[in-house]
Amino acid sequence: MSNQQQEVYETIKWNGWGDYGVEMKLHEKNQFWARHVDGKPIKNLMNFIYNEIKGGKGPIEMPPPTPSITLEAAISMLSKPNLNESFLKELGSALAADQIRTDGLSRITHICGKNYRDLWRVRRGLVERAPDAVVLPNNHSDCVKLVRLAQTHNVVLIPFGGGTNVTGGVECNPFEQKRMNVSVDMRRMNRMIKIDKKSNLATFETGVSGPELDDQLFRYGFMLGHDPDSYTYSTLGGWIGARGSGAMSNQYGDIEQMVVSMKVVTPTGVVETPLTSRVCGVDLNGLFIGSEGAFGIVTEATVKLEPIPEERIYEGYLFPSFEVAFAAFQECNAKGIKPCTLRLYDEDDFRMSTAMSTSSHGFLEKLIGKGFKAFLKNQRGWNLHKVSLVIVGFEGTKKRAAFQRAETAEVFKRHGGLGVGRKAGESWQEKKYDLPYIRDFALGNSFWADVFETSVLYADAIPCWLAVKAAVRKVWEEHGQHGWIGCHTAHQYKFGCCLYFTFASSQGDENDLKVFLEIKTKAMEAMLKYRGNLSHHHGIGYEHVPWMTRYMGPGAMNILFDLKKKVDPKNICNPGKLLPSLPKEGEGEDALAQRQAKELMFDKMGIPGAVKAHL
Amino acid sequence: MSNQQQEVYETIKWNGWGDYGVEMKLHEKNQFWARHVDGKPIKNLMNFIYNEIKGGKGPIEMPPPTPSITLEAAISMLSKPNLNESFLKELGSALAADQIRTDGLSRITHICGKNYRDLWRVRRGLVERAPDAVVLPNNHSDCVKLVRLAQTHNVVLIPFGGGTNVTGGVECNPFEQKRMNVSVDMRRMNRMIKIDKKSNLATFETGVSGPELDDQLFRYGFMLGHDPDSYTYSTLGGWIGARGSGAMSNQYGDIEQMVVSMKVVTPTGVVETPLTSRVCGVDLNGLFIGSEGAFGIVTEATVKLEPIPEERIYEGYLFPSFEVAFAAFQECNAKGIKPCTLRLYDEDDFRMSTAMSTSSHGFLEKLIGKGFKAFLKNQRGWNLHKVSLVIVGFEGTKKRAAFQRAETAEVFKRHGGLGVGRKAGESWQEKKYDLPYIRDFALGNSFWADVFETSVLYADAIPCWLAVKAAVRKVWEEHGQHGWIGCHTAHQYKFGCCLYFTFASSQGDENDLKVFLEIKTKAMEAMLKYRGNLSHHHGIGYEHVPWMTRYMGPGAMNILFDLKKKVDPKNICNPGKLLPSLPKEGEGEDALAQRQAKELMFDKMGIPGAVKAHL
Repeated sequence: MSNQQQEVYETIKWNGWGDYGVEMKLHEKNQFWARHVDGKPIKNLMNFIYNEIKGGKGPIEMPPPTPSITLEAAISMLSKPNLNESFLKELGSALAADQIRTDGLSRITHICGKNYRDLWRVRRGLVERAPDAVVLPNNHSDCVKLVRLAQTHNVVLIPFGGGTNVTGGVECNPFEQKRMNVSVDMRRMNRMIKIDKKSNLATFETGVSGPELDDQLFRYGFMLGHDPDSYTYSTLGGWIGARGSGAMSNQYGDIEQMVVSMKVVTPTGVVETPLTSRVCGVDLNGLFIGSEGAFGIVTEATVKLEPIPEERIYEGYLFPSFEVAFAAFQECNAKGIKPCTLRLYDEDDFRMSTAMSTSSHGFLEKLIGKGFKAFLKNQRGWNLHKVSLVIVGFEGTKKRAAFQRAETAEVFKRHGGLGVGRKAGESWQEKKYDLPYIRDFALGNSFWADVFETSVLYADAIPCWLAVKAAVRKVWEEHGQHGWIGCHTAHQYKFGCCLYFTFASSQGDENDLKVFLEIKTKAMEAMLKYRGNLSHHHGIGYEHVPWMTRYMGPGAMNILFDLKKKVDPKNICNPGKLLPSLPKEGEGEDALAQRQAKELMFDKMGIPGAVKAHL
Repeated sequence: MSNQQQEVYETIKWNGWGDYGVEMKLHEKNQFWARHVDGKPIKNLMNFIYNEIKGGKGPIEMPPPTPSITLEAAISMLSKPNLNESFLKELGSALAADQIRTDGLSRITHICGKNYRDLWRVRRGLVERAPDAVVLPNNHSDCVKLVRLAQTHNVVLIPFGGGTNVTGGVECNPFEQKRMNVSVDMRRMNRMIKIDKKSNLATFETGVSGPELDDQLFRYGFMLGHDPDSYTYSTLGGWIGARGSGAMSNQYGDIEQMVVSMKVVTPTGVVETPLTSRVCGVDLNGLFIGSEGAFGIVTEATVKLEPIPEERIYEGYLFPSFEVAFAAFQECNAKGIKPCTLRLYDEDDFRMSTAMSTSSHGFLEKLIGKGFKAFLKNQRGWNLHKVSLVIVGFEGTKKRAAFQRAETAEVFKRHGGLGVGRKAGESWQEKKYDLPYIRDFALGNSFWADVFETSVLYADAIPCWLAVKAAVRKVWEEHGQHGWIGCHTAHQYKFGCCLYFTFASSQGDENDLKVFLEIKTKAMEAMLKYRGNLSHHHGIGYEHVPWMTRYMGPGAMNILFDLKKKVDPKNICNPGKLLPSLPKEGEGEDALAQRQAKELMFDKMGIPGAVKAHL
C-alpha cells in the first residue's frame, strides 16, 4: 500500500450521508421546492412540511438554514489523542506507517455512525469522544497482529465498516477515556479471496462494501442478494456485526442465512466456524452474527451466492388501509406465497413518499392527483386518509416470477388491492437509497428526521404499529411540539415481520435531543410491550444496550457475559456495545445494577455537557 | 399421575424398533421370501442377499436365525444400580413415587439408542452400563427440581426422548461409573402449552412425539412439517438435541428453522431464548439446538406452524445415473426450483428398494421387469447398472404444487429423467418409516445393517459419494468379507446437501463390531476429506465426539468448553456426548490430549470385554 492511496473515508462526508457533492438542496428559484440528489425538483415538500411536520401551524415558509460547523472547525475541536506509545511503537513495526493514522481528518471521520443523534452532535461540535487513532488493516494477518498488540497493551478496538451504523455501534464508549481507543477501518479489506462456483459460495474479506462485493461476483454470474438501504457504503462486516437484512430478504435471506462460515480474531485466539452445507452439533455463527464486534473482529466470511435472476418485476398496489393490506399479506403467508420483496407503507409513510416525489409527471404524484382520488373515494369507497401503498417484487426465472406475480395478484385483488403498475416499483427502486439524504436536508433546514425498527410476531403487529405511533405522538404533544411519523412493514417471516418507523419534527433548541431520546425510549417501551424486539436489522450497538438484559433474560445474559469474559478478558473489543458492563470481581448484585444503570446513560448522550457531568 | 399409567417405554421393543408385535418375518411358506411389517411378501429378498450382500458367493439359502437374548435374561444381567440415596430421598419428596424407577425393565429400556452397535450389544447381553434409575418428569417444574437436586448431589442426567437415537446419544458414559446415572424419560411431557394461530406458533413440552405433536395441531389446521424416518417415536426434544431434519425439510426447514425459542434447564439456571420473529443481537438457539443435552434439558420449545397443505404430490423419476440426476438437481437449485422433497437414490440404493418391494404387482417390481429394462437399454441407451431413482414431492396450494411440478419436470426431462409416476411416490411414502424393521430382521437372520449420513458442499458431493462407498468396500475386502452399500441424497441447500449411506453385511463372529467400527471410522475419514460434516441430522452423540475437535477447530472448541464449564460446572449433563472431556485444573496439553484420546474409545465400544479392560 502506498501513502498516495485515497482511503474511502476521505471521500465520504464527515458530517452526513454519502459522497461529497451529492446532496438534496433548496431549489434555487422556487422557495417552496427542493432539488433531490438526482437534481429533480420536489414540488410538494413545503405542503408536507407545513401539514405533516408543523401540524398546519405557523407560517407557510421554508425555515432558516441550520448549517453544520465546518470540517476544519470540528478537527480543531478534537481533544488531544490519548496515545499508548508502546502499543503504537510495536504496531509501527508490525504494520506500514500509512496504516496507522492519528490525524484529525482520520479521527473525525470515525467518530460515530450516521443517525440523527450522531449527526446532530458532530454538526454542533460535540466531538469530544473521537477515537485516538485509526488503523487500516490490509488483511486477516494484520488484524491478528493488531488484536494481539491491543490485548498486550490494553487498547480498545472498535471495528469500523461503512460507518453507516445508526445505533451507536462505532462510537467510543465515554467510560473508556483512560485507555487508548482505536477505530479499525476495515475498508481496505475488500477482496474476494475465493469462489466455489459449483457450491455457490465465495469467501470475502469483511471490509468489502455492497457494490464492491457484487461487482466481484457479477463477472461469475452471481450476486449476494443483500440490499439494505445502506448498500452503497455499508460492508459485509457491518452487516454481520449488526445482523443486517436487505430489501429482498424474503427470497435471499437475512445476513444469517447468507453467511456460512466466518473467521473471527478474538483477543484469545482465532475462531473459525466450520464451512459446511448445514451445521452439525452446535452453531457458533449465531454468537458472532449480531455481536457488534464485542467478541472480536470478523475478518473473513464465506457467503452463499445467488444466480443473477433472469427476471425482476417490482410493482405497486394501493390498499384501502394498512390493516386490509396486512390481512392480504397474511393470506400470502398462509399459502406459502413469498415474493422476493413485500413492503407495505402505512397512510403516513405513503403521504411522505408522494410528497417526496420528484418527477413533474411522476407516478406517485398521479396517485394523489384529483381524478384518481375521486375514483378511489367514489368508485371504491375508500377513506383517502387511510390509503396505503404496497411495493411487491418478484425475482427468478421468467416463469417463476410470472407465476408468483399471478398468485400474489389473485390474493391482493380479492382483498381489495388495486394494482398501480410497475412505475411504482421502479420509483421505489430508484429512490430506495436516498432517505438519508432527505434526513441531512432536514438537519440543514431546521428539521430533523430519524428511523428505528423492530420485529414483531403477527399477532402483535397491528397493535404494535398503533402503539408505537401513539407513543411517539404523545411525546411531541407533551412537549407542545408537532411531528410526523410513518411506518412500513417488510421482511416477512412465517410468524412475524419487521415494522420500520420513520419520523421527523422541527428543530427547537439544545433540548431537541432530550425530546428525541424520550421518543426513542417511549417507542422502545411500546415495542417491548407488544413483544417487539430491540431492532430488526440496525443492530444493538450502544443505543439498545439498556434493554438487552430485559430482552435476553438473565439466564441468556449470564451466558453472554461469560462468553465475553472468555474471549475478551480485558474488554478491549468494542466495549459498551451489545452488552452492559460485566460484573466485576466481588461486586455485589446491587452495586453491579447501579453501575450498569449509570453506564447505560442513553438519555445523556448528545445533551451538551451531560456526559462530562455524568462520568 | 397414577401408578396405573402405562409408560411409552413399556410398549416399545427393548431390543429393536417399534411396538411389540410389529416386525418383518420370514415367510412361513417360502424360505426365500419374507413378510414385511405390513404382512405383504417380499419376494426378491434372497436374490438381493445373495447378489449384493454375499457378493454372489456361498450357498443360495436363507441363513440361520440369530436371535436376541430374552428381556428377562437381559434384566437378570444388569449390574446392581449405583443409587445415590440422599439424592433419591430428596427427589422422592419433590416428585411422586411413580416418577422414579429403578426396576430392571425401566433400566434396560433406557440403556441405549437404536443403531446397529446398540442393538448388537443388547441382543448379546452386553448390558453392563444401563442407567441406575429412570426419572419421569411431568412438566418443566419437575425438571427444574430434578436438575437442582442432581447438581447438589452430583448425579448424571441423560435426557431420553423417543430412544431412537443412532449416535450413542442416550447411553451412559463408561467413565461415569462412580456417579449415579439417571435417564430422564421426557415422554410424559407431551402437551401443547399454547398456540398462537395468528402468528403460526405453538409451544410444546419437548417429550411430545411426532404423531402426538401433529395430532394436537391438526385440530387447528396446522402441522409442524417435520418428518424424519423416526417420526412415529422420536420427540421434539430429541429433534432439538440431535439437530434433526425431516423428509420435507426443503420446504418446511430443518429443526433449527422450526424452533423459535426454548426453555432450557441448566444446572446453573433456566435459560429462555427470546420469542421473536427474528433474533436481534446474538442468537443462543444455535448453542442448544444440536447440544445433545450437554448443557441442560430443553423442557419447552415454541415452534413455527405450517398450514396443512391443500395438495400433496409425490412422484418418481428414473435417471441414467446418479451423476446425471445430480446435475438436474443442480439446475433446479440454480433456478430456485425447490420441491418440498427431493431425493436421489443411487444405483445401489435403488436396487435395494426394488428388492424390498412387497406388492406382487408392485410398482417398483415393474421397473425391474424385463420389458421395462429392455426399453431403458435399447430405446434410451441406459446402462442398467447405473439407473438411479428420484422421489420428488410438492406440497402447498393446488396451483403452487402444479406449477412447481411443471417447472421441475421441465428440468428433469431435459436432463434425461424419465417420469415413472405417482406410484413411486406413494410407495416411498408408504415405506419411509420401515427401514429400521428391515435392519432388525437382518440382525435376527445372520446379517446386519446400519446407516450414517453427512452433509457436503456441492463441489464435493460426487467425489465424497464415491470415496465413502469405496472406503467401506475396502474394509470388507481387507477382511475378506462382502457387503452392500447404497447412498441417497436429500435435504438440498443452496450450497450443499445431505448424503445418506445405508450398508449391510453378514454377521460373522465377535469381531463383527470391530469391522463395523472400522467402517465407520474409514467412512468418516473419507467424508471429512471432502469437507463433509460429522452428521446431517443424526447428531453428535457419543460416536462422533472423536472428530469434534477436528471438525470445530480449536478456537470454537475452547468456546464450547468454556460454555460447558459455565452452565454445567460439575459435568452432570449427558457427559461424554457432544464434547470430549474438558481440560482439568492444571492439566497440561499433552496430558489432556492423552486423556481425551483414552476416553474417546469409540473403537472399543461393543467389543466384548474391551471397555472394562480399557477403563
